Amino acid sequence: MDYQTLLMHETVLPYALTARYGIEREGQRITKEGQLVETTYPKTLGNRSSHPYIQTDFAETQMELITPVTDSVEELFRYLAAIHDVAYRSLEEEERLWPLSMPPALPLKDEAITLAKLDRFEDVLYRRYLAKTYGRRKQMVSGIHFNIELSELFLKRMFDVQTEETDFIRFKTNAYLKVTRNYLAHRYLITYLFGASPMSEKNFFVGAAGPKEPVRSLRNSSFGYKNKEDVKVRYDSIETYLEDLTQMVEDGKLSEEKEFYASVRLRGGKKVADLATAGIRYIELRNIDLNPYAEYGISKEQVEFLHLFLLFMLVKEETEETKTIKRGDMKNNAIALEHPLHESAYQKEIDALIVAFLTFVDEAQLPLSDALRLWLEEVQHDYTNTLAARWYKEAKQSTQAKEATALAETYAQKAWAKPYQLAGFRDMELSTQILLFDAIQKGINVAVLDEQDQFLQLSVGEHREWVKNANMTAKDSYIVPLLMENKTVTKKVLAQAGFRVPIGGEYDTKERALADFARYKDQGFVVKPKSTNYGLGISIFKEGSTREDFEAALEIAFAEDSSILIEEFLSGTEYRFFVIDGQVKAILLRIPANVVGDGKRTITELVAEKNQDPLRGTHHRAPLELIQLGSLEQLMLKEQGYTVDSIPEKETIVYLRENSNISTGGDSIDVTDTFSDDYKQVAIDAVAALGAVICGIDLIIPDKEVPATEKNAYGIIEGNFNPAMHMHTYPFSGTGRRLTMDVLHLLFPEKV
Amino acid sequence: MDYQTLLMHETVLPYALTARYGIEREGQRITKEGQLVETTYPKTLGNRSSHPYIQTDFAETQMELITPVTDSVEELFRYLAAIHDVAYRSLEEEERLWPLSMPPALPLKDEAITLAKLDRFEDVLYRRYLAKTYGRRKQMVSGIHFNIELSELFLKRMFDVQTEETDFIRFKTNAYLKVTRNYLAHRYLITYLFGASPMSEKNFFVGAAGPKEPVRSLRNSSFGYKNKEDVKVRYDSIETYLEDLTQMVEDGKLSEEKEFYASVRLRGGKKVADLATAGIRYIELRNIDLNPYAEYGISKEQVEFLHLFLLFMLVKEETEETKTIKRGDMKNNAIALEHPLHESAYQKEIDALIVAFLTFVDEAQLPLSDALRLWLEEVQHDYTNTLAARWYKEAKQSTQAKEATALAETYAQKAWAKPYQLAGFRDMELSTQILLFDAIQKGINVAVLDEQDQFLQLSVGEHREWVKNANMTAKDSYIVPLLMENKTVTKKVLAQAGFRVPIGGEYDTKERALADFARYKDQGFVVKPKSTNYGLGISIFKEGSTREDFEAALEIAFAEDSSILIEEFLSGTEYRFFVIDGQVKAILLRIPANVVGDGKRTITELVAEKNQDPLRGTHHRAPLELIQLGSLEQLMLKEQGYTVDSIPEKETIVYLRENSNISTGGDSIDVTDTFSDDYKQVAIDAVAALGAVICGIDLIIPDKEVPATEKNAYGIIEGNFNPAMHMHTYPFSGTGRRLTMDVLHLLFPEKV
Repeated sequence: MDYQTLLMHETVLPYALTARYGIEREGQRITKEGQLVETTYPKTLGNRSSHPYIQTDFAETQMELITPVTDSVEELFRYLAAIHDVAYRSLEEEERLWPLSMPPALPLKDEAITLAKLDRFEDVLYRRYLAKTYGRRKQMVSGIHFNIELSELFLKRMFDVQTEETDFIRFKTNAYLKVTRNYLAHRYLITYLFGASPMSEKNFFVGAAGPKEPVRSLRNSSFGYKNKEDVKVRYDSIETYLEDLTQMVEDGKLSEEKEFYASVRLRGGKKVADLATAGIRYIELRNIDLNPYAEYGISKEQVEFLHLFLLFMLVKEETEETKTIKRGDMKNNAIALEHPLHESAYQKEIDALIVAFLTFVDEAQLPLSDALRLWLEEVQHDYTNTLAARWYKEAKQSTQAKEATALAETYAQKAWAKPYQLAGFRDMELSTQILLFDAIQKGINVAVLDEQDQFLQLSVGEHREWVKNANMTAKDSYIVPLLMENKTVTKKVLAQAGFRVPIGGEYDTKERALADFARYKDQGFVVKPKSTNYGLGISIFKEGSTREDFEAALEIAFAEDSSILIEEFLSGTEYRFFVIDGQVKAILLRIPANVVGDGKRTITELVAEKNQDPLRGTHHRAPLELIQLGSLEQLMLKEQGYTVDSIPEKETIVYLRENSNISTGGDSIDVTDTFSDDYKQVAIDAVAALGAVICGIDLIIPDKEVPATEKNAYGIIEGNFNPAMHMHTYPFSGTGRRLTMDVLHLLFPEKV
Repeated sequence: MDYQTLLMHETVLPYALTARYGIEREGQRITKEGQLVETTYPKTLGNRSSHPYIQTDFAETQMELITPVTDSVEELFRYLAAIHDVAYRSLEEEERLWPLSMPPALPLKDEAITLAKLDRFEDVLYRRYLAKTYGRRKQMVSGIHFNIELSELFLKRMFDVQTEETDFIRFKTNAYLKVTRNYLAHRYLITYLFGASPMSEKNFFVGAAGPKEPVRSLRNSSFGYKNKEDVKVRYDSIETYLEDLTQMVEDGKLSEEKEFYASVRLRGGKKVADLATAGIRYIELRNIDLNPYAEYGISKEQVEFLHLFLLFMLVKEETEETKTIKRGDMKNNAIALEHPLHESAYQKEIDALIVAFLTFVDEAQLPLSDALRLWLEEVQHDYTNTLAARWYKEAKQSTQAKEATALAETYAQKAWAKPYQLAGFRDMELSTQILLFDAIQKGINVAVLDEQDQFLQLSVGEHREWVKNANMTAKDSYIVPLLMENKTVTKKVLAQAGFRVPIGGEYDTKERALADFARYKDQGFVVKPKSTNYGLGISIFKEGSTREDFEAALEIAFAEDSSILIEEFLSGTEYRFFVIDGQVKAILLRIPANVVGDGKRTITELVAEKNQDPLRGTHHRAPLELIQLGSLEQLMLKEQGYTVDSIPEKETIVYLRENSNISTGGDSIDVTDTFSDDYKQVAIDAVAALGAVICGIDLIIPDKEVPATEKNAYGIIEGNFNPAMHMHTYPFSGTGRRLTMDVLHLLFPEKV
């Protein structure tokens, strides 16, 4: 099969880089000081056995972070980042993740290496068997498993332009087999480039000698964790492969098929035997060391390279030599055991392979990042720029353990820097980021169906839920937000159910409104457009108005909408009650942007200090916004007799804005626990009257110490069907309320 | 109590005309020829006993149309119009409503007047008692009952400015009592102005003599239906009123309280006795004859007058004479029995009362329509311009029966002229009008919570549902329309569930899209903005494109949205499947505006003829739009070698538009019955995959005779969460599908 020609075909090439990806990253949990932890898998993650993203591997200390299958490298790294973020922030406060493949110092006694505490007895049994067969220490080595499935579209198009094979499944399987043989023959290049386990830590080699000198990759060498010498399979065809594997198990050389630890594992179907009928669906590369310089153990450039390299392996001619797996193994082992700073004995072959690879990429006009190309050109001449060399040099500065511990600290700090955000999904709204965090933590499968639209699909087994903006779900009915969107309808429904709403009227002409002027003129009232929502066109007359002012207000409101509302003005403080599933989960008071004087610093200095709060940011990507000192704020200061250089007296609150929006620097204050049940009941009942399940409802309350049952104790203006949640979770002051967890509980009571 | 001063107070007067209203209109069902029908209450209306709007009164032939309580005269007439529309179109094809208070010719035998066939035995018994006590014939007289409740706000404000009474309920009751006494004393004016029953028809007076001459109002005279002479009550106070009424029942002069047929009935509470504690809540005027000139038995001006007149009755000083109810009765009877074309014996009193009324209205600056004022000024001088006079003159042209039958025909034709619309609600969307029609017909309580927003509240007993746009309900969940709104998410979800959707990609930069040009260039594909919906920014390449055209298409699409979609082009015919609750209820084919040649007429003439179809109108207030012959259509004709003056050959279809939108004159063709079940199942399953209950889903089908299970037999582009319904109900050709009834069945299975 001339894969080179097939790949270069104009109907095929556009799809060459379409594929699906998945990564498993193992890593040891360590203390802040770099010691292996003695704690168990974090309780907050729930049951590891059913957790789709965060499990344990061989040992209790060894976490395994698993991405879902993704359609792009970008998406792959978003998940990898997010899952790491969740893992870091789910660990005990002082725990970190060890960034190296070779484990940190191990206990002297074998038994002190705790096997993963799993539910299923067969899982425990299997680990006991592995411990006995290979030794617990070798099982403590961690790495990256990289799964790749070439797209159906790409393979189909290749299949369509060839004429030798009539069965698509066989065509696909044979293509994967060629990739596999070639990869095994040339994986020494991967070891040369990405090998990153030059040295072991204390007690890794116990009762057996390790290498005397540092190497490129202990993990990928004969010192690493691999099958016994007599485990060998042929890759000529899927039939011989399966035949050999079955034989190994029958002969007792392997306990079961999954014990076969080749650098490439052929995947597809639930059992290995399925490969015979269903064909190979994807392959798993298992020879990638953890890259200490990559925050998530592997970099995007590495993945980019691996995909291109596999395509190269597909088109590269096979020779009798490369077909022999044994030769490839041997060469790989030799290179793995070379000193990281030395030229390789196979340097010419390595360089030639890199050149051939780059030629292939250029001929096919496949994209290769500049950084990666530069590095690949460099490592042909500068052997000290491979990963192993870089890390070995760094480790020599002090000790490998110290450097690794410091790196672990850096990565952990990064994950904690903005704990309200979720790496990989920082372009999404904060509430969605928090919900995604919680879902991943609780082991709910997450899929972002549309990022811009904040549209998620969550699932646990067969149970699927969609969520938009973190609060729009199937638990609410279609008609309810349409109802709440309409202020007139909302008021009618609330009034009908006996709640106090501002009395008033709706008008579609200025004349009709003017005719009712006498009804409003002597009391506080508000004129507003019927349907706009951003405070535009609203006039407030707290104590009545003249006919002229009334007329002007009508004109302002009618400029925004063809219908306007005139309502009595309700005086009091506005509180946001967040109701979910018949319970008030949070109550928030919002106050305008302000600073509190200390008698020493100027307003400019006080604002600067308040803006230091890590909760403050810009563009709604932080729970609070930075306070501005623009013209509006300065005008407001002027009205109070201040300038930005004034020094307010101690404990004097200086307001910088009239409006209390969080988006203009306002403070959010959680007051949930200061409210008596009667007001909470009003909010719950009002939300029920509106038929809503998740709702932010704003109550105007003159004095919350007065019982809610008193006449005019409260008034309701509107219900909000897309209520912000992050301001409750990370308030300026008061207790944070994890509303996203409440949403998840509503959706997946079986899980949260 | 000086009500005049109270009413004129500046805090009171703005609310003087705020009130709640309700009307009951009785009317006899007749044949096209003006004979009393022999049919029963229309079956399509369901159970009359629980019907809120359309019941039967005394006889089976006597319909009673009942509006709900409304907050304005305008709303009152909308309901009155709508309920009449529904009543007319629910009658048997040849049935009409008799427009007069006096019944049409009655059967000679008493037994031939069929009592209303009611469920409850006590209702039947009561009618039997009435038949026996007053005679069946008198019970056949029909009229208007007008209910009015002065607003709480108005009464409270009056109460607040007075000092004599400390109890609000008593204040209110006394105000209503004064109105009642004054109304009874002066109701002769109503009889003079609005009396409209000058003559009876055949067999009304059987075994008793009627008046020799025509009169103003037989119904309001001693010949009308009224209590026996010995039934008298005092209206001095609520206590004496109740005392007298109780005594009448105890003495057996009345069978029960509701048999008391005064011209004004005091209402409030469920039982008359409740008036003692709860006070009078509203009053019911029962002396209004059916106005033959008013389509609904009473005109808006009459209601306007009655409200003002009652306020006049509130402020008008009482004298010893007016306080005597008997004097009022006597005067009223005398005027009722006067010849309609003659001056009244009380003309001076009448004129003075009109002048006093107009003076009151003007002093209070209360609004009075010009037409009404003019008429009131006229009838002081021209006695032949009262309702009775007008009608009597008209009846003399031929016979009263003939004229009444002709009027009945006019009103029925009007109700049938545009059977897809609902009188009173013609500003609402067609689908909502149709749904309202069906709901009223089936006896579901309807309330328009917001007209512009097409927002309805429907209820049956305690069961309440909200509906917007006739298809948005609580049966669908909040997240589903959000999902369908997003084309990318829709496609992902459908693809995930195994449906064929166009393959493609989403792009947020032109560069990314250009990079994939090779994937698209050789096949049919579509470039479109991600979220706009009106066909803007879409480019279709049915057979691939050049790079230049591709780039231009990208620019066009990106001008509309920051994200675009590129998808394979699916060729075939687009069908709209309307799915509701897991069933395909309608399938529609839409074809572009067109005419079919006859070899004789020009295109202009053919268009004009096609536009004669009563289903065609403008602005979406008809099921189909008028076909235009504007520049777009003329260009399209030119491309086919036609002009507007061309004469197409017989049976040649000439298309005037490329797009098949109904809104640009396209034809809707119902093809529901031509589809096999397999395609219906695809639509049902796809809608289920989207989680929707009510959904219009568009399938592209190259050949509907090919089984849906064949590869590429269909493709799905999007689901529509606000699917138009009227185009299915009133298609250009094929069977209409009453989807609104399906929606009602979904919401109220207990009723529909």
